[in-house]
Amino acid sequence: MPQPLGFTLNPLDRSTVEGEADPLGRFEADRRALSVAIVGDDVLLRMGEDGGTALFDAADLTGADESAPLGLLDGTPVLARHFAPGAAERLLAVRGRRILDLRSTAVQGLVPAAQLGILAQAKSLFDWHARHRFCANCGAPTAPVQSRLRRDCSACAAQHFPRTDPVAIMLVARGDLCLLGRQVRFPPGTYSCLAGFISQGETLEDAVRREVLEETGVRVGAVTYQLSQPWPFPSSLMIGCAAQAETEALTIDHKELEDARWFERGEVGLMLERRHPDGLATPPPIAIAHHLLRRWYEEGSPVSR
Amino acid sequence: MPQPLGFTLNPLDRSTVEGEADPLGRFEADRRALSVAIVGDDVLLRMGEDGGTALFDAADLTGADESAPLGLLDGTPVLARHFAPGAAERLLAVRGRRILDLRSTAVQGLVPAAQLGILAQAKSLFDWHARHRFCANCGAPTAPVQSRLRRDCSACAAQHFPRTDPVAIMLVARGDLCLLGRQVRFPPGTYSCLAGFISQGETLEDAVRREVLEETGVRVGAVTYQLSQPWPFPSSLMIGCAAQAETEALTIDHKELEDARWFERGEVGLMLERRHPDGLATPPPIAIAHHLLRRWYEEGSPVSR
Repeated sequence: MPQPLGFTLNPLDRSTVEGEADPLGRFEADRRALSVAIVGDDVLLRMGEDGGTALFDAADLTGADESAPLGLLDGTPVLARHFAPGAAERLLAVRGRRILDLRSTAVQGLVPAAQLGILAQAKSLFDWHARHRFCANCGAPTAPVQSRLRRDCSACAAQHFPRTDPVAIMLVARGDLCLLGRQVRFPPGTYSCLAGFISQGETLEDAVRREVLEETGVRVGAVTYQLSQPWPFPSSLMIGCAAQAETEALTIDHKELEDARWFERGEVGLMLERRHPDGLATPPPIAIAHHLLRRWYEEGSPVSR
Repeated sequence: MPQPLGFTLNPLDRSTVEGEADPLGRFEADRRALSVAIVGDDVLLRMGEDGGTALFDAADLTGADESAPLGLLDGTPVLARHFAPGAAERLLAVRGRRILDLRSTAVQGLVPAAQLGILAQAKSLFDWHARHRFCANCGAPTAPVQSRLRRDCSACAAQHFPRTDPVAIMLVARGDLCLLGRQVRFPPGTYSCLAGFISQGETLEDAVRREVLEETGVRVGAVTYQLSQPWPFPSSLMIGCAAQAETEALTIDHKELEDARWFERGEVGLMLERRHPDGLATPPPIAIAHHLLRRWYEEGSPVSR
């Protein structure tokens, strides 16, 4: 069975947090409260014999530089705590603890899938706070309000909300062929779906067509939504689509892509299973591209071109 | 025939703008160049006997405080120009010109549908520039670069990109009933689909379920993507879904909604056609809620509850 798509399972009930005036105080006062911890940009884990966890008793994580309420886990308050990198030594003094980047934590499956969703929420939130300490409207300092669900400007009263950036990511196919590309920063041999941020004034479907045309010169007709995924690097919403190619000739934009080419269905199967003779591979199952490719490989019926 | 969904048709080829080092200079030098104009927050129109237009010869719109390249219209460069409200009198000195807010322009169908998409792109872009003159990371002034497709910080070198906010909007249905709500700010009698911003660390589908639960207490099961729409007030991406309700009892969040209730299919038909005996109505066809409702009304087969 393939691993679940990364960061998509988040069991927290956020409604109390978003509706309440100041849930942080109530969460902090609750002796049952749990917490995840972000250390710099990484996550704090505790590895045991029966697997790892990222959920700690909130009272065990003291000295955080920021705390925020995330939601309720079956009625239990869950907080997020942020620590500066300098706190790592102190945090790691407890046996079994480990600090690791979130992507590796997900790829290695070190914690239950539902905890990855909670960690993604926490990481995106602190990243946004770290990069929005000033008002984009007037330059004055901002301060967190409503338990860190918003930042208000101290001078012009502008209200700032956490940012989520929609990204279109698409499996471009034509009959038994699909179009994949690789960026210079990818691991050697990895090919993935094309993707790009959705621009202002653009539908999802037009964004798919524009990105594919810009990066490869291929014209796309029908676009079909498939599934979505939060991607906490730092705070994208990946919107996964299937795209029907109408042309095949490639004109690669080498500012964006190192390479792009058409792959036969059978080759994609070998890449998904990491059995390709030349070492080519798809992204791992935590990535939405893996699932878009697997759906096409398993469900798409081979049709003549 | 219903009007097309507002702002979804945008005929511009943006690839040259996004790929080129400085398209603004080239666009400005092209004698064929066209331009739309944003005056304050409104749009400049020219009304003629055979309808209106928002496209002007770029050379006829002098004295703008900002200009940006938008894309190519069948090979012709299209710019956006921004004017302060104080320029209105001078701009209106030319016979047939009119300044109007974009929403009214769309509702009244004063310009071709494809021009509404161009105007939406221009309005969202200038709005973003106006509210991002300073660096959220360090508070120093930012300056536009790459023909206003980005702003860079003068102190910390942070790069800032225009913001697009994904919003989930959903037609919640259960058999022959659908759930609509109204906010205090809506016109009298108007009921619309529930909607809300997608949070960090959340899938589209979970955002739909959370918003419906928070605002009405109704539990949603299956969520199906329907269509998307850019909404330039100021720069949302509306992601329209159909949502299957699993419960009917309502607990309305009166901080968000003035009212919410279930409507029978026949009543929705009367509201869409503005023939409801009590004057109830749906949003107009420029809004995605209208199209979600019309799809459900026309295509959904009545099933027993």
